[in-house]
Amino acid sequence: MAATATSPAAAHGGATVEAPPVVRLLVSCEDRQGIVAAASGLLDELGANIVTSDQFSTGIEGGRFFMRMQFALPSGLGQDEIEARFAPIAGRFAMDWRMWRAGAPKKVAVLVSRYDHALLDLLWRRRRGELEADIGLVASNHPDLEADVVGFGLPYHHVPVEKGRKPEAEAKLLELLAGKFDLVVLARYMQILSGDFLRDVGAPVINIHHSFLPAFAGAGPYERAKERGVKLIGATSHYVTEELDAGPIIEQDVIRVDHAASAADLERLGADIERSVLGRAVKWHCEDRVLVDGSTTVVF
Amino acid sequence: MAATATSPAAAHGGATVEAPPVVRLLVSCEDRQGIVAAASGLLDELGANIVTSDQFSTGIEGGRFFMRMQFALPSGLGQDEIEARFAPIAGRFAMDWRMWRAGAPKKVAVLVSRYDHALLDLLWRRRRGELEADIGLVASNHPDLEADVVGFGLPYHHVPVEKGRKPEAEAKLLELLAGKFDLVVLARYMQILSGDFLRDVGAPVINIHHSFLPAFAGAGPYERAKERGVKLIGATSHYVTEELDAGPIIEQDVIRVDHAASAADLERLGADIERSVLGRAVKWHCEDRVLVDGSTTVVF
Amino acid sequence: MAATATSPAAAHGGATVEAPPVVRLLVSCEDRQGIVAAASGLLDELGANIVTSDQFSTGIEGGRFFMRMQFALPSGLGQDEIEARFAPIAGRFAMDWRMWRAGAPKKVAVLVSRYDHALLDLLWRRRRGELEADIGLVASNHPDLEADVVGFGLPYHHVPVEKGRKPEAEAKLLELLAGKFDLVVLARYMQILSGDFLRDVGAPVINIHHSFLPAFAGAGPYERAKERGVKLIGATSHYVTEELDAGPIIEQDVIRVDHAASAADLERLGADIERSVLGRAVKWHCEDRVLVDGSTTVVF
Amino acid sequence: MAATATSPAAAHGGATVEAPPVVRLLVSCEDRQGIVAAASGLLDELGANIVTSDQFSTGIEGGRFFMRMQFALPSGLGQDEIEARFAPIAGRFAMDWRMWRAGAPKKVAVLVSRYDHALLDLLWRRRRGELEADIGLVASNHPDLEADVVGFGLPYHHVPVEKGRKPEAEAKLLELLAGKFDLVVLARYMQILSGDFLRDVGAPVINIHHSFLPAFAGAGPYERAKERGVKLIGATSHYVTEELDAGPIIEQDVIRVDHAASAADLERLGADIERSVLGRAVKWHCEDRVLVDGSTTVVF
Repeated sequence: MAATATSPAAAHGGATVEAPPVVRLLVSCEDRQGIVAAASGLLDELGANIVTSDQFSTGIEGGRFFMRMQFALPSGLGQDEIEARFAPIAGRFAMDWRMWRAGAPKKVAVLVSRYDHALLDLLWRRRRGELEADIGLVASNHPDLEADVVGFGLPYHHVPVEKGRKPEAEAKLLELLAGKFDLVVLARYMQILSGDFLRDVGAPVINIHHSFLPAFAGAGPYERAKERGVKLIGATSHYVTEELDAGPIIEQDVIRVDHAASAADLERLGADIERSVLGRAVKWHCEDRVLVDGSTTVVF
Repeated sequence: MAATATSPAAAHGGATVEAPPVVRLLVSCEDRQGIVAAASGLLDELGANIVTSDQFSTGIEGGRFFMRMQFALPSGLGQDEIEARFAPIAGRFAMDWRMWRAGAPKKVAVLVSRYDHALLDLLWRRRRGELEADIGLVASNHPDLEADVVGFGLPYHHVPVEKGRKPEAEAKLLELLAGKFDLVVLARYMQILSGDFLRDVGAPVINIHHSFLPAFAGAGPYERAKERGVKLIGATSHYVTEELDAGPIIEQDVIRVDHAASAADLERLGADIERSVLGRAVKWHCEDRVLVDGSTTVVF
Repeated sequence: MAATATSPAAAHGGATVEAPPVVRLLVSCEDRQGIVAAASGLLDELGANIVTSDQFSTGIEGGRFFMRMQFALPSGLGQDEIEARFAPIAGRFAMDWRMWRAGAPKKVAVLVSRYDHALLDLLWRRRRGELEADIGLVASNHPDLEADVVGFGLPYHHVPVEKGRKPEAEAKLLELLAGKFDLVVLARYMQILSGDFLRDVGAPVINIHHSFLPAFAGAGPYERAKERGVKLIGATSHYVTEELDAGPIIEQDVIRVDHAASAADLERLGADIERSVLGRAVKWHCEDRVLVDGSTTVVF
Repeated sequence: MAATATSPAAAHGGATVEAPPVVRLLVSCEDRQGIVAAASGLLDELGANIVTSDQFSTGIEGGRFFMRMQFALPSGLGQDEIEARFAPIAGRFAMDWRMWRAGAPKKVAVLVSRYDHALLDLLWRRRRGELEADIGLVASNHPDLEADVVGFGLPYHHVPVEKGRKPEAEAKLLELLAGKFDLVVLARYMQILSGDFLRDVGAPVINIHHSFLPAFAGAGPYERAKERGVKLIGATSHYVTEELDAGPIIEQDVIRVDHAASAADLERLGADIERSVLGRAVKWHCEDRVLVDGSTTVVF
């Protein structure tokens, strides 16, 4: 899972020659013989050197095949020409597929409530160049974090959710988001989003849940962890589906706690895990490392 | 949680002088001022040097106080004399308390079914002197592991559980166990024990559950972990109560897995976590480090 | 190591009654019988309830004894009165000792060069109330991080270190620091401090080193880790002594890496470990949990 | 790193149809365009479905390329026929290469001294089918572990190393080992092997070192770790080269310790890490996941 080169320049370590752009090919389809040969054969024919390649199959016959391949764009060829040449192969194998220029940032919007840790960590990771993400706006149902967000040079939208008037709030959020972003991140946004919203927003939505799912799904996980006396607390980042806290898991991690930790201590310690787990999930998503496989994920 | 000296000899590093025995004092009671002063004052008066001391309170007023104190027995004084002198203090603070000679092994019985990993690790740790445990017998509802157990020089009792005749099996187990052991360990014993059995066996029972409780309580946790797509799998060691998989947790740990691991892989990887978690729980219990606090534990 | 209550109020969970202040007693001395009894006996006599107590001995006879005790200040008594009453006990056992009001922040100065991660994490943890620290100033040999520091409402002092003129730079730093702070933190300050500076600054200095010491002491640890092909990289926080990278270690941690990670990737991944290790070391120091034992530390 | 299917049967989960054998292709060569296309194209032409594929390059031009590909052997074709067809491709790219039948065990010999933990864990993992290894003999410079080894049904050779007569001992070991094994494992064998021995034994040699290398290379690592006051102790498994403790690292791990742990405690805790690190290194080697890259390794 450690970062691999997304540009041949990385491997040269300071070469002054302009390195060719790298393109990612993402594929999922029913597993059959010949997929790798067809894809790599075309790339060879076009003069494109494969930089990295990952593949996984849930079973040779009847199973599902997943692939992430990065290749250097040959000089004189555009990504669209390669896509046109690849389309017939994709058709032959009935592939779900797309290509994405490596390093080209995803357009990202962040929703948040009052807790700052997950949001600030994303903004800081973006600033230091860790994320292939162009964070375009932050929206919140509370005004609290405006100064922090503006300090990072980003617009902050306060969209309050009044009791009994969630549809109005979601409509306002959709005005801000729908069709304008590649990814929406819930960085401890404490409102449940409706199925209609998830359909209309037009982008995958990643959430960070403050427990090791499926343990302590729902509200108040740290209080319940304290009552149950668990010796580790965790966090889970997952794609949001209409079923609460049940979407495909991207990343999880835990931290050790003991009997002396109060529920407030668990919340404080948990914040460190939440921000690192969400940071990895967003990083991997933006690098096209995460492919959804029904209710789970393949993470290359 | 790292092992602390249980005998002053340990600190001298090979002294040839006979070190005095060390006694442990375990206390739980309502928290009030003066408990530590009363206990340490008596020990000082008796000439007993305190070797280690741990204490924890859930709240000064109305909370519960827990203490584990180890002291060197002064020459010329027996543990029973110190107990007699301590009894009035215990009465004054309405303490739950006991003393135990450090290093004196607990008498332990192990129940197991077919999986060997948790059992063999306990037997090996006992052999190399890691556990303050005298494992006296192993009983199983299957005959499979007899040769292994006999190889460690221990008796193996095959007590099959026939369909619909669990009471008879439990009666046979009680004949072997009741009143004869300080601790019963379920090292992947795949039968649910009745409340009657738990009452009659007369010793605490420690179980190892093959998931990070409360996630995946009940049967088939690895299959369900695979379906849910979790990125970590875990194990939980807890005291057994009548409510299945809900007793006070002693220790938990996890291991990272990925999409490529099958349910069988999870089971294989999980075995490593199960044996180390159970080993720690049994070690800590035998060293009197675990005090039960309602549905949870304090682990010193 | 999980945070324990520093005020009785914490345990009551929202009590409206004013909780009494808590005082910490830190002791190190030659181990002898009666230390705990004497200390707890005095506190009991004064009506002071012991909230937490940790102790450790390197050996009963000839060894060294360390203790951290927190007690609730009885109403009507000041910390100075208790100190006066404790002094004779301290004299009897030839103790190194001090008392500190729990929750009273240490005055802290931070030195930094160009990397922002360790500094920003400290400032953020301070802002959210995680550290018992009052960060009073940040000084740097580079101007780069001024805007960030000012954004947190803190003064930023640019003290360049010109080639061959380090004594002048250290003199300027001493003007800013000497006698004014309880702790100096090097949050990736890339200059070696002289023995004279360390003597004159009048406060302990905590550094974060970007390797798992003693591996890769000195410069360029990530490059050397890449060459050596290690499978984990780490960070070490330690007190600074005149001998480079050899002071008493407070905390260490590691993160898993693989062959695909470049030296630049190691540096990026290492930053996450550096900031969390330094954060824990500073937190524990400020909570008086760290006692120096020659070339090592006892961390309660 | 989680286990991937080595046979298509694994994916079918209990299919009664005979699954075709799987063959592994291991390649390292200078990186150039067309390697993947050539290999996968041939396999497609021969009707061989690629089951898994991993690749890594240290740089597109001038770098080194590593690949591990598993494919199902088409019915009617032998591995030798595929090797014959692959040889010209290998020649074209100047590959270091080999094929190995997945699941076919490596012939393994184990050298050990007196500590039992690493040896017993290997023997147990072999017995439960975790390792693609056929452990053929155990040799030791001490007689202590004979009963354990014989209990696993294996021959035990006692080859003492008398002071000043190491060449004679190595000659006896070479009689037992040379040319007869695919791998030699040093499971805490406390003798330094000569360069001549390493050349003549004719198989890679894997060692487990009881520290996180390069920290505490050489003798007495736990004593030195205790003196230095490190907060984590580790273990390192590496290929043995003539330079002591400097061969390519395969796997490392650590465990947290604290000030209360004596050097003896570190040794006991370290044993758990040693056995698990060595177990993973041997498992991965036997599954052909480890490719040497100069002084480091690529682990797929």
